[in-house]
Amino acid sequence: MKVRVTVMLKDGVLDPPGKAIGHALHTLGFPNVGMVRAGRVIELDLDETDPALAKAQADQMGRKLLANLVIETFTTEVVG
Amino acid sequence: MKVRVTVMLKDGVLDPPGKAIGHALHTLGFPNVGMVRAGRVIELDLDETDPALAKAQADQMGRKLLANLVIETFTTEVVG
Repeated sequence: MKVRVTVMLKDGVLDPPGKAIGHALHTLGFPNVGMVRAGRVIELDLDETDPALAKAQADQMGRKLLANLVIETFTTEVVG
Repeated sequence: MKVRVTVMLKDGVLDPPGKAIGHALHTLGFPNVGMVRAGRVIELDLDETDPALAKAQADQMGRKLLANLVIETFTTEVVG
């Protein structure tokens, strides 16, 4: 199964890359862009056929390695 | 509207961070992890009420700034 882990900064944590992207978009002619947040996405192929087990494993990976839970949150989804 | 742009390396483009994550997961006790790909996600608040227009604008942003189309692909979705 393929799972996707999406890691975003928590609300309130400063996000300089997001700010830079927002600024660049304004400069490029997208004036209606408000807040921008930048994050990471990790796609993993798991040797696992049960979607529930695959998702549970991705959750564990998020907690153990992929996200820094002090400043980040993550979501997991099975994508195929 | 809130839109999400997900940027991933194209298949075949080397992904050292993905490799490092896969290796770390094996070490941490997840032996059934196969290929790992790392990418970026950008969430944007757009001052736009029409979901189709918001998505079209996100597509434009992806092409103009957010993705390097030589080595990356991107997908856009309206998330709220």
